[in-house]
Amino acid sequence: MQFELTKEFISDLSEAIAAEDRIRIAEYLTGLHPVDIAEILDNLEVPEARFIYDDLKEEVASDVLVEMEEDVREDFLASLTAKEIAEAVDDMESDDATDLIQDLPEHRKERVIAEIKDQELASDIVSLLSYDEDTAGGLMAKEFFCVKKDWTVAKAIAEMRIQAEDTNNVFTVYVVDVKGELLGTLSLKTFLFANNSTTIEDLYVPNPRFVTSDTDAEEVADLMDKYDLVAIPVVNDANILLGRITIDDIVDVIREEADKDFQIASGITEKVESRDNVWILSRARLPWLLIGLLGGILGAQVIGLFESDILTHAELALFIPLIAAMGGNVGIQSSALIVQGLANGSLGMESVVKKLLKEIGVAFLNGIICSLVIFAYVIFAGHGMELAITVCVSLLSVIIVSGLFGTYIPLVLNKFKIDPALATGPFITTINDVFGLLIYFGIAAAIYL
Amino acid sequence: MQFELTKEFISDLSEAIAAEDRIRIAEYLTGLHPVDIAEILDNLEVPEARFIYDDLKEEVASDVLVEMEEDVREDFLASLTAKEIAEAVDDMESDDATDLIQDLPEHRKERVIAEIKDQELASDIVSLLSYDEDTAGGLMAKEFFCVKKDWTVAKAIAEMRIQAEDTNNVFTVYVVDVKGELLGTLSLKTFLFANNSTTIEDLYVPNPRFVTSDTDAEEVADLMDKYDLVAIPVVNDANILLGRITIDDIVDVIREEADKDFQIASGITEKVESRDNVWILSRARLPWLLIGLLGGILGAQVIGLFESDILTHAELALFIPLIAAMGGNVGIQSSALIVQGLANGSLGMESVVKKLLKEIGVAFLNGIICSLVIFAYVIFAGHGMELAITVCVSLLSVIIVSGLFGTYIPLVLNKFKIDPALATGPFITTINDVFGLLIYFGIAAAIYL
Repeated sequence: MQFELTKEFISDLSEAIAAEDRIRIAEYLTGLHPVDIAEILDNLEVPEARFIYDDLKEEVASDVLVEMEEDVREDFLASLTAKEIAEAVDDMESDDATDLIQDLPEHRKERVIAEIKDQELASDIVSLLSYDEDTAGGLMAKEFFCVKKDWTVAKAIAEMRIQAEDTNNVFTVYVVDVKGELLGTLSLKTFLFANNSTTIEDLYVPNPRFVTSDTDAEEVADLMDKYDLVAIPVVNDANILLGRITIDDIVDVIREEADKDFQIASGITEKVESRDNVWILSRARLPWLLIGLLGGILGAQVIGLFESDILTHAELALFIPLIAAMGGNVGIQSSALIVQGLANGSLGMESVVKKLLKEIGVAFLNGIICSLVIFAYVIFAGHGMELAITVCVSLLSVIIVSGLFGTYIPLVLNKFKIDPALATGPFITTINDVFGLLIYFGIAAAIYL
Repeated sequence: MQFELTKEFISDLSEAIAAEDRIRIAEYLTGLHPVDIAEILDNLEVPEARFIYDDLKEEVASDVLVEMEEDVREDFLASLTAKEIAEAVDDMESDDATDLIQDLPEHRKERVIAEIKDQELASDIVSLLSYDEDTAGGLMAKEFFCVKKDWTVAKAIAEMRIQAEDTNNVFTVYVVDVKGELLGTLSLKTFLFANNSTTIEDLYVPNPRFVTSDTDAEEVADLMDKYDLVAIPVVNDANILLGRITIDDIVDVIREEADKDFQIASGITEKVESRDNVWILSRARLPWLLIGLLGGILGAQVIGLFESDILTHAELALFIPLIAAMGGNVGIQSSALIVQGLANGSLGMESVVKKLLKEIGVAFLNGIICSLVIFAYVIFAGHGMELAITVCVSLLSVIIVSGLFGTYIPLVLNKFKIDPALATGPFITTINDVFGLLIYFGIAAAIYL
């Protein structure tokens, strides 16, 4: 029952398109959900996608456009006229329509909006376009069920029947006063079992959770996740109901957020996908590489201070990579936990001092084990007691110092409202490399040079 | 309107509890959602939490238990009798009840289940306990609206009124045949606007998306995300409807999954939080440190091959950390994109060869820039042309090789059904360290020793 897109499917379909074999194409697409068709179009060339799109039923075509990958869709839309786009937009909900029009080149936006037949939708789109994409306003849809508190259930259902035309995925009915101020919510379940003559006033749940149109998208996601909400109303500063956000859009926000954090922690500075082109990928990766390079140059200068010692004790060079790598690894581990705790609110109420003390505990425990292993190795490899002690003591110190940096730096960044995810990955690795080398050669100088 | 927990709040509340000042405590908790009260209890000592819990209304207490952090709740439940737990469980939905009972020590599970008054709930729990926590069966609830296709709307609503008692968060009504086989779905909206005498058969949407009880939780999440579902029915192999999963539980799955990937990529081998204790944190971090240590020892052996050369050319040691670090950084960057693409299905249809060619492009571009920078630095620092060429050529090679490893290894792991997230972080860093050193000294030997 579940459709799975394969390379074979795409190449078979391409063949059918090349042969303009509409019957075979229709067979391939039978029973597929618009989401699946969108996935197929994502993987075809624009003229091929066009061929399929033109044969789709109007509402299906509209849903397919909503579900296509944004960057692929941009190219695809370039092949449609403003009128064709407007026809598809006419069947969309206002939030999806706005997302699509947002990505159009400036000069096409107005032309598409002018071609939209549904005047209410057109004006909703214009108003939604004014919100920042990463805020509640940018996520909300203007279609919702809205009833007045002095209505009876019968009257409310009659009115909702009219509102229902453009409203899909409805779970909650919003109750407002005459000015449009949000008073409360009602579930469809309550409606279903209520007596027709009861007034809304006696049924609704007051003090609903809401967000304002400028609430950050991530904050909306945290709120809906925390209180297990499937929809949340959006109001303006005067508490006037503007729209609603549904959980499916929030799931996308959560996934994108997680992806972004993972990428930042991996040293990739802008949101990219592996299918992006070489230029975009290179540009996203270069900044961190240059920082790493700077770290390497600083490392070279630290070692340079001890260059003459290396001439007499070349064996010191052997453990340079070990010290640097272990500092980096510990730093990534400890910062990852803090970054994650900050992101999902699981840090708890522990003070910074307690966190650092705990990190010292963890680092000391692991450090002792690693140091003993390396001590045994250095002795066993016949490098002598002096080097063994140097490597062992500096490894323990590096693990502790790196753990402390890894714990402390993201907390500080967070305090200064800088994304703490920046502190994991290459950044912490680079700092720890340099400090690790200073510690290593410092201890070597003290113990045995 | 939004409650935000602070340290001050907790310490004020602790004081009120110590003074057994019930009036002040009630004031503190007025208007708070059970989710907020759960968060408060998470941050109190068990006896304090107990004091508050005992004064809560029965349903609120039940909701609070559902929402508490699992590990804190485990300690808290140890302070309650089996009867007290059963009383709270009696007000829960079957999935939440099962999650709670699952975490109890073996000998208490049966005693709590025996004390549950609602016999249907008790048997639902027993059946749900048999499913793996990470499958659809482990996520589903047994409470749902279920109607027969030959019923009229009026009859269906009457029956749903009875089912409604235990059923919250309902968005979809499931239609089954006489044997209980899933036929389709109906939205509450359809019900609301339908004529009382219409039969369900004429209204329902056939061929619903469903999962079977053994479907992996992540697969359920991907499906619900892809098709924007707020609930999905769970059936057994004979297509008999067993339960339903709602999106709020799936949001938790998605967040946990993202956290796990982030941790694995950061070299942390089991799911931990920064508030876990020192032992758990150390144990989760040690395995990767030992692998890093092994990498460092291999690195020492590579350098050992060239020890006598370092005695005459100590300047070679200067750029050891740079080469190692850059290999690690590039490896993390390229593997992160592949790992992420595999996780969220955004890899597209590109072949492995095309991916590797693209990675060569990216690595070459960034490599050239970094190599030129380092060439300039080495010359400027007065280390001479030979070292400059050695560092420059090996850096370029290391960046390309590391990029290829980073791209290829996660793809291979994925092919062998090993979690590709294992390939990022310490693992790729370690491999690239060793190869980087081999390349560096190999090129040094060729060019200038």
